[in-house]
Amino acid sequence: MDCQYFIGVDGGGTRCRARLTRADGTVLAECEAGSANIYSNFDKALETVSRLISGTYAQAGLALESSAQTSVVLGLAGANVESYRLRAEKMLTGFASLQVLSDAEIACIGAHLGDAGAVLIAGTGSQGVRWDGAEFRQVGGWGFDLADQGSGATLGRRAVRCALQAHENLLPPSAFTHEVMDYFSHSPEQMLSWVSQATPADWGQFSPTSFHHAELGDALATRLVRQTAREIDQILDYLTAQGENGATLMGGLAKPIEPWLDEQSRAALIAAKGDALDGALLLARTPVLSTT
Amino acid sequence: MDCQYFIGVDGGGTRCRARLTRADGTVLAECEAGSANIYSNFDKALETVSRLISGTYAQAGLALESSAQTSVVLGLAGANVESYRLRAEKMLTGFASLQVLSDAEIACIGAHLGDAGAVLIAGTGSQGVRWDGAEFRQVGGWGFDLADQGSGATLGRRAVRCALQAHENLLPPSAFTHEVMDYFSHSPEQMLSWVSQATPADWGQFSPTSFHHAELGDALATRLVRQTAREIDQILDYLTAQGENGATLMGGLAKPIEPWLDEQSRAALIAAKGDALDGALLLARTPVLSTT
Repeated sequence: MDCQYFIGVDGGGTRCRARLTRADGTVLAECEAGSANIYSNFDKALETVSRLISGTYAQAGLALESSAQTSVVLGLAGANVESYRLRAEKMLTGFASLQVLSDAEIACIGAHLGDAGAVLIAGTGSQGVRWDGAEFRQVGGWGFDLADQGSGATLGRRAVRCALQAHENLLPPSAFTHEVMDYFSHSPEQMLSWVSQATPADWGQFSPTSFHHAELGDALATRLVRQTAREIDQILDYLTAQGENGATLMGGLAKPIEPWLDEQSRAALIAAKGDALDGALLLARTPVLSTT
Repeated sequence: MDCQYFIGVDGGGTRCRARLTRADGTVLAECEAGSANIYSNFDKALETVSRLISGTYAQAGLALESSAQTSVVLGLAGANVESYRLRAEKMLTGFASLQVLSDAEIACIGAHLGDAGAVLIAGTGSQGVRWDGAEFRQVGGWGFDLADQGSGATLGRRAVRCALQAHENLLPPSAFTHEVMDYFSHSPEQMLSWVSQATPADWGQFSPTSFHHAELGDALATRLVRQTAREIDQILDYLTAQGENGATLMGGLAKPIEPWLDEQSRAALIAAKGDALDGALLLARTPVLSTT
């Protein structure tokens, strides 16, 4: 493959970034747009990705025909669902090469700059990926209803449910449960109308509240944060069980949860050497890596 | 109030029954229809109730004008949400008296034939009610997303989530998790498409599977059933804390969960003396009881 151009796309659940480089790594253009989740909205995600790619060519002053000399790697939210990943790969044509991976996979390659290693992304949702140098192994990433243990949305959901139980005197009320109920004006009916429209991100807004009160020593908040930490321990344990290589913890929960993790988890954590976009471009430039 | 006729309606989440009697309790007519949940479908619920009431008059050979001599008590699913209960009460007119309560409240009156006591309905959802002889006190009944701890749907959701974790080797797979994954052909993608349409009753179908494997000694199923039992213990403890009177456990989980409850809960359980329809008619005939 004799490519002149390389495009990496990091398409997460909240924003999508694209970067166009030369073979030597020189950055020619960078563009950003909204979310690109091929599972929750396939057509919109592909449209976003196409627009971003055209945007990078335009910014670099290149004709769209340059695509024939471009190697592209997309890391898209929702691409852990294999049938959607394959469908996306078939829809995007005209490139010298194009590969669709999940956003977690390119983050894993970026974090370890292509070396074997693992990442666990714990934000609104949770997803783990391990790269052994030849193959990816994913765990989680199945969303709020089925999985997302160790995530901010799951922690937030437990906080809201427990706050309602405290409101009904099934659990001892505390400053923590009071703060959560404050959001709903202490009305279960308001909660009920909120819940019918609540997205995982909405539930997740009660995750910082939980950390805050756990740090202040609130018994219930501490229990919920510990439960989240055990779930992350469990995934980290799985991700690091079969290799000497460490894991990188990413996402909004990475920093607040770290002190709550067990010793073994903390010992396994290593800092990211690069980000997801670095990972996508590394894969685009290194065909040997991209034969998953 | 000089009423000749009395109508009780038990409107649950799956079926709705109505009974028309004379003052002496003689049954003149009985009709049955589908669900009548005023929270999840207000208009349909009221239409069902109106049709059932007309049906009982027709069956008894009475003119619809008999409503002016009829005292009516409706126990409707969703009426624990006060604003919906009041709205229903305002919509149904033309009766000598009409009162809307929740299905759990009339079940409580029926179970203890008007005496002080409590009921906990643990089926697809969960809801507790205590009647102290003057006032109802409700707990739970806020639905699958916010509450329903100790219910079949919640147990089933945990079973499905744990089965997926076992499928991904985050938890040790067992005959139990295998049976759950069998339902989805061992495909997380199939689960994902199922979950987007799953109702609480759909989740609840994995509750019997959980009991079955807990009885066989499966470690994970045992843990999930015990968790459900502790949640029911917690609600029973709350319902019986302030009175000498016992509680009646009703709904699909009542029988399978009983051996898993703690000693204190089991000691507090008493059998129902009547059903929800008995409760509604008792309230319709006994104005003093119905001043909640």
